[in-house]
Amino acid sequence: MAKLQFSPQIEARVRDSFSRQGFMKHLGAQMTVVKEGEVEIRVPFRATLTQQHGYFHGGVSAAIADSASGYAAFTTMAPDSSVIAVEFKINLVAPARGEELVARARVVRGGRTLKICAADVFGVKHGTETLCATMLSTIMELAGKSDEAKS
Amino acid sequence: MAKLQFSPQIEARVRDSFSRQGFMKHLGAQMTVVKEGEVEIRVPFRATLTQQHGYFHGGVSAAIADSASGYAAFTTMAPDSSVIAVEFKINLVAPARGEELVARARVVRGGRTLKICAADVFGVKHGTETLCATMLSTIMELAGKSDEAKS
Amino acid sequence: MAKLQFSPQIEARVRDSFSRQGFMKHLGAQMTVVKEGEVEIRVPFRATLTQQHGYFHGGVSAAIADSASGYAAFTTMAPDSSVIAVEFKINLVAPARGEELVARARVVRGGRTLKICAADVFGVKHGTETLCATMLSTIMELAGKSDEAKS
Amino acid sequence: MAKLQFSPQIEARVRDSFSRQGFMKHLGAQMTVVKEGEVEIRVPFRATLTQQHGYFHGGVSAAIADSASGYAAFTTMAPDSSVIAVEFKINLVAPARGEELVARARVVRGGRTLKICAADVFGVKHGTETLCATMLSTIMELAGKSDEAKS
Repeated sequence: MAKLQFSPQIEARVRDSFSRQGFMKHLGAQMTVVKEGEVEIRVPFRATLTQQHGYFHGGVSAAIADSASGYAAFTTMAPDSSVIAVEFKINLVAPARGEELVARARVVRGGRTLKICAADVFGVKHGTETLCATMLSTIMELAGKSDEAKS
Repeated sequence: MAKLQFSPQIEARVRDSFSRQGFMKHLGAQMTVVKEGEVEIRVPFRATLTQQHGYFHGGVSAAIADSASGYAAFTTMAPDSSVIAVEFKINLVAPARGEELVARARVVRGGRTLKICAADVFGVKHGTETLCATMLSTIMELAGKSDEAKS
Repeated sequence: MAKLQFSPQIEARVRDSFSRQGFMKHLGAQMTVVKEGEVEIRVPFRATLTQQHGYFHGGVSAAIADSASGYAAFTTMAPDSSVIAVEFKINLVAPARGEELVARARVVRGGRTLKICAADVFGVKHGTETLCATMLSTIMELAGKSDEAKS
Repeated sequence: MAKLQFSPQIEARVRDSFSRQGFMKHLGAQMTVVKEGEVEIRVPFRATLTQQHGYFHGGVSAAIADSASGYAAFTTMAPDSSVIAVEFKINLVAPARGEELVARARVVRGGRTLKICAADVFGVKHGTETLCATMLSTIMELAGKSDEAKS
């Protein structure tokens, strides 16, 4: 299998797919970095994203780490493939607090069908990042099934 | 340790904590069952909850299963304890589609400090439930630290 | 895809593959149940299987639950497929003690390529079973690649 | 809480506990590095450690990564504490082959009660390391309960 060359077309495809995730918009999340095998997503603090103690809900950390991981994997997939998350595991290692959350995901190993990703989530307070969650996930490439079409 | 008796007070404490989760409100989620060691949360479909193919985003399944698990564990905790999720793992086994999602969580084993929970998430289509995700999680009881106070 | 009918041939194929796992023999493990989508593996207590407190090592629980899960999935696969474990997550919920450990695995959802399994591990003491671990795993079917050949 | 200073006493305590794990001896595993928050364990290839295709069994990777993670956490614990693994998740990203396996674990975040660890497992073939598994785990410190006594 010829290795794909990362390109502006791939970045555009990733950003287009992300823009179709209504949930990311609902969270106020933005995709701030797209590179080969790497994606960063940020979400500013809002009271609508909190758990009972006023911090970001663990589900927010999980959601942006999940999307960042899926799209990090997607940067390495063929143009006619679509991406689905098979599973993920997240450790919530500290309260997720600050003016924003940032999730950074990278492909740890890319097989033909499955890509294994790691992601870290940081709370940013006065510009200082503190690790609040770490994720390990399995992403699947569905070959020959364009990501743009509803399956 | 004397075993806690499930009571209307415990249910009220759980529902009160849930109502303080801004994120659950933002999702449109409702807590539909609270029993000893069991909680059910439902969320109706909205376009604001979707991934790129128009189904519920995996982050929504994760968020409601996470909250349901934490509160299932919370039903077994002392009145002056607060609850935090340590980690969870979720398998997204089928597209999460339908008019609503329902997450059902139960305590599998309750230790003094840690409670292990399992949760299943179902897509409900025309009233028929299909399993779309299954979660295993670790929840921690913080004794002597009321859940109502911001830590 | 026509659904496979469970048969003595499938059971024989599962048992043959299990017998080629040198590690299961090294543990003294036996496959005690093989049914459609379900496998049970047992291992008697030995001092060579312990962690520092004299109980079964978590790695033993993980190993037999992993093998039981893989073979539960294998019972549902085509004759010319081989099986590999993609990932698993295990909660060690109580000390693994007793005269033997028993792992019971079942397929929770079987997709074409991936099968999601759940397994529970019990310590058996004086014939009474106590849950000591619970696992969630992802198993992959490699079509057209016989399990008997070394890849 | 005063931070513990890593010392020869701590290393001796870790190595002593490891030597009491009958299972590690049964695998032929050796603890090759002990540093503050880091532990490395190696196991040479033997036919008794294989899965059905002749590679190291996933349970071996899991067992040495689990022990390495627990002991990495143990290097940061008080002298009168004992260590137990709460849960772990492992992705088996490539066949575990070669003349030996090496697991390297490190503490990602150390809380008072729980320590979160990450570990990677490599197959070593002709001296070249290839990542074959990656683990994320939760380890618990049981304060006031010496690791040497059977609980």
